[in-house]
Amino acid sequence: YEYVERELLKLKDLPAQSLDGHRIHLKGNIEFVEEVSAINKHGGEGIGLYRTEMLFFNRASFPDEEEQYQAYAAIVQAMAPRPVTIRTLDVGGDKCVTDPCLTDEMNPALGVRAIRLSLRQPKAFKAQLRAILRASALGPVQLFFPMVSGVAEVRQAKALLEEAKAELRGKHPFDEAIQVGIMIEIPAAVVIADLLAAEVDFFSIGTNDLIQYTLAIDRTNEHLSSLYEPLHPAVLRSLKQVVDAAHRAGIKAHICGEMAGDPEYLPFLLGMGFDELSMNPVSIPRVKKILRRCTMAEAKQVADRMVTFATAAEADSYLKSEIAARFSESFD
Amino acid sequence: YEYVERELLKLKDLPAQSLDGHRIHLKGNIEFVEEVSAINKHGGEGIGLYRTEMLFFNRASFPDEEEQYQAYAAIVQAMAPRPVTIRTLDVGGDKCVTDPCLTDEMNPALGVRAIRLSLRQPKAFKAQLRAILRASALGPVQLFFPMVSGVAEVRQAKALLEEAKAELRGKHPFDEAIQVGIMIEIPAAVVIADLLAAEVDFFSIGTNDLIQYTLAIDRTNEHLSSLYEPLHPAVLRSLKQVVDAAHRAGIKAHICGEMAGDPEYLPFLLGMGFDELSMNPVSIPRVKKILRRCTMAEAKQVADRMVTFATAAEADSYLKSEIAARFSESFD
Ligand SMILES: [Mg+2]
Ligand SMILES: [Mg+2]
Repeated sequence: YEYVERELLKLKDLPAQSLDGHRIHLKGNIEFVEEVSAINKHGGEGIGLYRTEMLFFNRASFPDEEEQYQAYAAIVQAMAPRPVTIRTLDVGGDKCVTDPCLTDEMNPALGVRAIRLSLRQPKAFKAQLRAILRASALGPVQLFFPMVSGVAEVRQAKALLEEAKAELRGKHPFDEAIQVGIMIEIPAAVVIADLLAAEVDFFSIGTNDLIQYTLAIDRTNEHLSSLYEPLHPAVLRSLKQVVDAAHRAGIKAHICGEMAGDPEYLPFLLGMGFDELSMNPVSIPRVKKILRRCTMAEAKQVADRMVTFATAAEADSYLKSEIAARFSESFD
Repeated sequence: YEYVERELLKLKDLPAQSLDGHRIHLKGNIEFVEEVSAINKHGGEGIGLYRTEMLFFNRASFPDEEEQYQAYAAIVQAMAPRPVTIRTLDVGGDKCVTDPCLTDEMNPALGVRAIRLSLRQPKAFKAQLRAILRASALGPVQLFFPMVSGVAEVRQAKALLEEAKAELRGKHPFDEAIQVGIMIEIPAAVVIADLLAAEVDFFSIGTNDLIQYTLAIDRTNEHLSSLYEPLHPAVLRSLKQVVDAAHRAGIKAHICGEMAGDPEYLPFLLGMGFDELSMNPVSIPRVKKILRRCTMAEAKQVADRMVTFATAAEADSYLKSEIAARFSESFD
């Protein structure tokens, strides 16, 4: 085991590209500045998802702009010159903070979460946006909004970002051209991905929530775990629709959900055309290993075939047979 | 008001067709046999959704086959010769029955509901299927399954239906060719409507749940009512995708959610090509009135335009202006 780990870590400084030279970006999902070293150790190219929630948990009131700035600045400085993608507050649902409006929701996963909560609290939201903007003066930073369901929400969030910029000008430096993205994790966002692509600079698919909502299966409900199927044809078609809509609009498509960190899924995610996969840092070497042994042509073949099955079981057994036939030695 | 009601009831015996003769079916959603008279009084052409849940509520154990048969037989005989579409048990979520597996779900709307519950209790499910089959000897009956998320579930449910038929043969008469449908109310079912259409005889869209899941908005959460948008572009595109998939496969597309009973929505639902709308019986005359004043050409024009907007607000204001321009006198 230790030998395998050592072998994998040797991949650290090799480029994340397919056997025939197609480059994609492999990054890490983190919550704490201490995890930046794990990204570096495993050869990650930056932070694809920095979750800001930890700053907000278990306290009576939200952290102010200055406290948030200190936290974001530490992350950006630790990761520089590599980029950091910061997600605005994603609470509600299973992630609780103290808020009277969030208590007693009958279905918290379908409740006042994430961007819905931020848009209801514009003062607090702008404090977070200003803190992120200020951190963007210290290294490459992108920001993105979770749980977007429509164009109107994105426009509201972007308008508040413009207000936050105006409030900072002349007082604090920040990246005027900061890239703005959204998470694609609600079925509506998949259906109107073409409309949303016109509003932002990148998409990042949150596969965990996307699967949950697309299948109407609570991913924490143990009675339904057999129905929570990442390879359900509706999920695979949705992934493809999102990446195609992004590329038609000339923007990037990332994945930051658990699917990104599963090396078995790498061939079809590569073949579908994703530009960036962000995952638990420890998963990066295994994913990179498969990536470096796969040609884009065979990845495309697998991806094209994966969206033809009527059931997850068929897709799963096809994928397993392809992995066995083409990449078995890469899964040592 | 009474005068308006009397005028509307005069429509009772006129056919449900557009000004230029395109026929669709207007039916009623009911829970009790007593409501059959309301369907007749308002000119409904049968029952598009008979909810069997009431039989199952507030009791220690499920009703047996015989008790269910008596209830279904009464409905079918009261409605004959007009057809009755019976939905198998749709509980869980906000509709509670006594079942240990359903208690303490964190997100009941994403939990063990409807067909998921039925497939876990094949004995009880087959008792319901046998009761429905036996009622099909007494008048035209169709049956359909709620909360379908994939092809595998439909195949399992149909296999149990075949078992139920085998158990009845030689003992009780039933309609061997009973039509079998599914509700389309989970986003996955929209995405794979083409695959599901190959498995069944008709689709019935449950717009309330479809909106809820597509937008990830609990429809009972008062804090989110402004985000629960029937005219969200993702909802309108989903409706169109389902009806198109049904017709390409040569099967019928119905709507039995609340959208079917809103006369303002009639023009675009007609234009999209739906074959049947099932609603609260009292809504039938108002919907029929608009239907009879609308040509298919103008309905198609409205439907085509409705799917072009980026936001629900734009679709809503377009629809209101069309209604004002073309049908205002029909909304007296
Ligand atoms: Mg999420
Ligand atoms: Mg429903």
